[in-house]
Order: sequence, then C-alpha cells, then structure tokens
Amino acid sequence: MTRWLEQQAEVRGRRGLVRTPLTRAADDQAIDLASNDYLGLATDPRLAEAASEAIRRWGTGATSSRLVAGTTELHLELEHELARLTGMEASLVLSSGYLANLGVTTALGGPGTLIVADEHCHASLIDGFRLSRSRVETFAHNEPADAARLLAGRMPSGRMLSGRSEPRALIAVESIYSVWGDAAPLPGLLALAEEHDAMLLVDEAHSLGVSGSGTWQGHGAVAGTALAGHPNVVLTATLSKALGSQGGAVLGSALLREHLVNRARSFIFDTGLAPASAAAALAAVRIIRSEPWRPAAVHEHAASLASGLAPALARLATAVGHTAVGPAGAFQAAGAVQSIPMPSAAAALSASQAAHAAGVRVGCFRPPSVPDGISRLRLTARATLTPREIDQACATLRGILEETS
Amino acid sequence: MTRWLEQQAEVRGRRGLVRTPLTRAADDQAIDLASNDYLGLATDPRLAEAASEAIRRWGTGATSSRLVAGTTELHLELEHELARLTGMEASLVLSSGYLANLGVTTALGGPGTLIVADEHCHASLIDGFRLSRSRVETFAHNEPADAARLLAGRMPSGRMLSGRSEPRALIAVESIYSVWGDAAPLPGLLALAEEHDAMLLVDEAHSLGVSGSGTWQGHGAVAGTALAGHPNVVLTATLSKALGSQGGAVLGSALLREHLVNRARSFIFDTGLAPASAAAALAAVRIIRSEPWRPAAVHEHAASLASGLAPALARLATAVGHTAVGPAGAFQAAGAVQSIPMPSAAAALSASQAAHAAGVRVGCFRPPSVPDGISRLRLTARATLTPREIDQACATLRGILEETS
Repeated sequence: MTRWLEQQAEVRGRRGLVRTPLTRAADDQAIDLASNDYLGLATDPRLAEAASEAIRRWGTGATSSRLVAGTTELHLELEHELARLTGMEASLVLSSGYLANLGVTTALGGPGTLIVADEHCHASLIDGFRLSRSRVETFAHNEPADAARLLAGRMPSGRMLSGRSEPRALIAVESIYSVWGDAAPLPGLLALAEEHDAMLLVDEAHSLGVSGSGTWQGHGAVAGTALAGHPNVVLTATLSKALGSQGGAVLGSALLREHLVNRARSFIFDTGLAPASAAAALAAVRIIRSEPWRPAAVHEHAASLASGLAPALARLATAVGHTAVGPAGAFQAAGAVQSIPMPSAAAALSASQAAHAAGVRVGCFRPPSVPDGISRLRLTARATLTPREIDQACATLRGILEETS
Repeated sequence: MTRWLEQQAEVRGRRGLVRTPLTRAADDQAIDLASNDYLGLATDPRLAEAASEAIRRWGTGATSSRLVAGTTELHLELEHELARLTGMEASLVLSSGYLANLGVTTALGGPGTLIVADEHCHASLIDGFRLSRSRVETFAHNEPADAARLLAGRMPSGRMLSGRSEPRALIAVESIYSVWGDAAPLPGLLALAEEHDAMLLVDEAHSLGVSGSGTWQGHGAVAGTALAGHPNVVLTATLSKALGSQGGAVLGSALLREHLVNRARSFIFDTGLAPASAAAALAAVRIIRSEPWRPAAVHEHAASLASGLAPALARLATAVGHTAVGPAGAFQAAGAVQSIPMPSAAAALSASQAAHAAGVRVGCFRPPSVPDGISRLRLTARATLTPREIDQACATLRGILEETS
C-alpha cells in the first residue's frame, strides 16, 4: 500500500492538485471572503455564551448515540426551533451536514427508489445516493425538463417479473449550489415532484440564514413558499455555515423524522451532536429571527462585490473563453456565494495565494471539487464585512484578476 | 412516499422494533451504565474550561472545510497529540468517528483493493466499504485463519485481462468490538497483514482511553505494541467516547495523512470539527497521560459488574439457551463494554425500561444494531462510577435479569 500511496502523491504533485490546509491563527487579520460564516455568527458573543452555558450544564460531549443517552432537552429544543424557522413540521439533528445528507438519502433510497439528481449536487448527497443502492440518474444542471425525462423512465410497479420496480422516486437538488452559487428553480421542481409522486429533497446548506423574503428573510429558500410543509418535500440543512456552529439537520414531516430515527444509519450509529454546538445553533436560529439585517447585508455585500469586480471579471471571462457563471453568463450570486471561473487549477491556486498574501482570504476550488471541472475562486459575501473591507478586497482582487487575464 | 413511510412504521410497530430516543434531563440522577463516557471526562471541569476558552478564542464553529479556512492551530495540536498518544506518526481529525471510518475506507479502497472485514465491524466501516466500491469479503468473527483464506483469494495483479485485479488489500477490525465488548487478536492479524502485503485497519473507538498496559495504559490497544507506527497499520478513533467530546481521527503515516487530505471526501467536503470539541479532546488526551487511574478503574469496575451479576447471568444463559458472550462463553469484557444477550428484542427493551425506572441507565441493542441478531443489554463500566453505584446497579439488574430468566 505504501508504494501506491507514494505513486498517488507523485501524480497529484505533477498535476498541480496537491491540497494543503492553510492554518488559521487566532489573531488572523485577513479579510474573510472564504468561510461559510455567512452571518458572522461564529464569533458572536451570544453564541459563545450559549455554548459555554451548555457545556457547564451538559458537558463537552453527548456521550453516546442519540438513541442511547445522547439526546438532551437541548437537542429537542433545537429540532423544534429549526422546524419552526423553516416552516416544516419536524426536524432531526445529526452531528454534521454530511451525515444528514447520507442519512436521508439512504433512509429514503434503496432498490425501490429512483433518484433523479441535479448534476451539481454536493459530494455528501452523491455519496448518499451510492450508499442507498438506488438507481441514480443525473439531470442537466437546473433543467427540470431533463429531470422530467428521467422520471418518465422510472420502472413501473407492475413490472415485478422483470426483477426490478421503482415504486418511489426522489428528486435531489440544492436551493443554492455551493460552487456556482446559483439558485434551483424550486417551483418547477415541486410541480414535477407532484406530477410524478416523487419526494423533492432540497439541500438548504447555503440558503438557510441567507434566502427568504419579507418576514421569511433568512429562513431559507423554502420557508414561506408552497414547498414549506408540503408532504412531497424534505429539506436538509447544515448548522455549520450561517448558523456558525457544527452539525446538520433533516426537516420534514413527523412521520419522516420517525422513519429516520429508525432507519438512518448515520443517525443511529453516530454519537449525538455536542451540546455546545446544539446550543450555539439554537442561539443562531433566534438571532436570524430577530436580526433580519444580517441576511439583508449578505445580499447587499454580494451586489457590492459583483459591481466592484465587474470590469475585471468581464475581461477575465473573455480571456478564459467562457462566461462567468450560470445560464445568464453574468457574475451573479443568489446568496452569499460568488463564483469566479479561472483559466486553470494553477491560476486559481496562485490567485488565491496572492490574495491571501495581500490580506484577503478567498476559497480556491479545483477538481475534483468543481462539478464542471472548471477551477475557480469562491468568494462569500459575509454579513459582517465592513464597507472598507469590501472596497479593499475588491481593489486587491481586481489587481490579481487583471494579472490573470 | 408518504404511504410507504406509513407502512414501514406499521411493520416496525408490529415487530416491536420502534426506537425512541429517551431524553436525558440536565439533572438526570440515574446511574449511567449506558453512555460511552468511559473515563467520566465529558463532565470534567478541565475539558469544560478548555472548550469554553477555545470558543472565546476561535468561535463556535470552524466556519468551513478544513481545506478552506477550517484548520486552526488547535486542530493541528490535537492531531499531533493524538499521534503521540497512540504511537503513530501522524493523524487527521474529522468531525465524527463515522466520517473518519468513511474517509479512510474510501480513500484506501476502490476496485483495486480487496477488503477483508471481521463480521462484527461497525456500521460506519461497512458503509465505507460499500462506498469504496471495493470487493468486500467478511470473515468469521475474530478468526484470522478465515481472513487468511479470503486474502488468498485476492485477484492477482497479472490477471489484467480478466478485467479486474486487486493489487491492494485492507483487513478491517475493531480492537474492542462495540456490541460484544471482546478484543481482536491483533498480533495474529498483523502477521497476516505482513504476509499478504495488506493494510490492517484497527478501529480503536472503544479501546482508546481504556486499553494498553504499563506506561501505555489508556493509550489504546495498539500503543506500545508491534502495531504502533507499523507501515501496514492504520487506526481510527473517536473523540466522543473516552475523550468525552465529539469527532473522529485517522492515525497512520504522514504519507497516509496527506493522501486522506487529498482523497477522503468525508474530510474534504465537510466543515471542520468545532474548536470547542477539538479543545475538549486535547484536554482529555492530556488527562489520559496524567491520570492512569481512570483506565485502571474501568477494568476494576468491569470486573465488579461481572462478579456482581455472574449468578444471574449464568441462570439467564441457561434459560435463553446460549452462552453469554464470545468464544469462551463467559461474561467477560476486554474493556468497558459488557454485553448481556437477552431472549428477545421485547425482553431486552422491557428490561432496559425497568432498569431505567429503577434509576439505572443501560444500553438496549436490538436488530439491526447487533451483529449476531441477538438483542442484548449493554453495560459500560465507567471509571467514575462509585462502589455504591456499582453495588446498587448490580442489585437492580440482578432482580430484573432473574425475572427475565
């Protein structure tokens, strides 16, 4: 095995695809356009106080699976509040968003379920599809018509003699996609789910805390729409992005929750979420309700970044021969995530390193972490960025991007 | 999908297999023989202080993947100390033990790797095997000779024309099994790994903090043995059992760590472990070094429970027609976990409920959470149980077990 590991390392090195975690110091002064702390809550004193209080009260760990002794009152309160925030009947909290996606896909999937998934779905969904042993078909990104074509090919229940039938179907999407930053056409997808008697799974990882309009601002892309509480809809969410904590959740009917408690292996065979993380997420849910300026600021800052970088991005798009992002070909973000396609993995890496050296931390995504194979910088328009930081970041990035193009 | 969920719930109810998490109150006074807080560290003030300090310093979340901005100095320090504790060269921390097992199995597995696994391997390992797309063969529990037979059936590298070769092999075991509580024959398995040029994966979830002798007491089953630092050995561990926190780790060579950083999807696509949990685990590692009385107490308490329950268990074993646990047919625990086979799922559930009503919390494991299909009570001989608590628990459980048999 050692020789094989050495060969693999050599190949990565040759292709310029070696990943090395940058260590973040506690006194890091860089402007943060890289993290998923969209609302700036990870360092909010109210979350810190709630987490520390939970540690005093419950200890530093859940001590066992949720089914044995790992369910505290805090976990149930968090589940109740998450469901209320998103407009769903019930929720179940797991120790990571990754495990939430594995849990729901494996518990609803299986040989009797056809999974029809957007080609940009996150790795944790794809791994869940594989684990579920469902037949999985991938539709063209954000094209419900293509999903409809695949749903029409579902094995009818009557054909039991052929050895396979698919009485159930699951359509899987993200409300905001993590790499491109664009939004899913949810109303069309819901119509499709109804028409085909399918379940629509919406991963709200990048929209919880960010999307939603009017009184639902920050409650996610589903809250306040026809999808909320719909029997054909199930959501997943992470507690580690806008909620500034750790963990994940599945949101749906009480019946679905009970099914997951009994069938989701990533729930049953995993230690419960640490009380500190549950408490921090709960505090974050309450702040989202009481401070709608935070999600609003994410959208304002996304617009400022877009306009501040527009000329450089237009030149870059021409230079690298493709449109910036999404069907409209424009640099546009549905939420906090802004995607900048780069001409190569090496160019993405060196631009992100140059930005970091100049005091701006940006995400650098290279294969295999990009659904379309195009390396890119990924900026997050966080709520607590100051106007000065945004100006400074734009100036820095303009310079770097102009050198690239 | 809703109708199917209803049918599934109905079947579970009919079979007596409905799981319902018992909620633990903060002022819960029950004697805890159920949790995996083996050393009593989850409520240790030193872990609480370390976690709260980390929250003040770093915030309540890691804010992104370890590869983007989620690696703090704390994560690296914890990785260094975990490697030192277990005698391995390097380690990589993930946000749960489940994800650590998925990560290492998928990054080392694949169509070119034959996985030969003990039939009692944990669900998280089994899910990793499936995800890896390796050929997986299961050997009879704790029988290296059976594993040898399977390793001999590995597809030779020369047979490329047949469409499949297996240049690599992985033997997967747990040093202490989570349900039976017995130990793996590690020296024989290492010899096998060397003979077949295979990697030996040892899940130390239930032995870290508990196993090890002499100066290695509590450092796990591998530390201080020929396995420690061996190039054919890789370990996984959880931070959520003896270490009283949350998270998981893979321990092996620096080369292996670099491979996982680049290839383990459950590492790459997951938010990093919360700083509070990293700090609590780090404090726990230091306590394991400085307070060897804790692992020693686990073994003493396991012996006290075994002798206190021996007559009742002997009667129960006769009554239910099978030996208590393991090849020796005796009630014996290699570490903290004590397994009591019960005549049925219903009997296990009602005994655990009766124990809880009488102030003793025990684990209740029913299908599909038991590798042999036999429902059981699971007791954990935690270090911080008092003699009085052990006596009281034995008296309570004797009464309940006598009623069962």
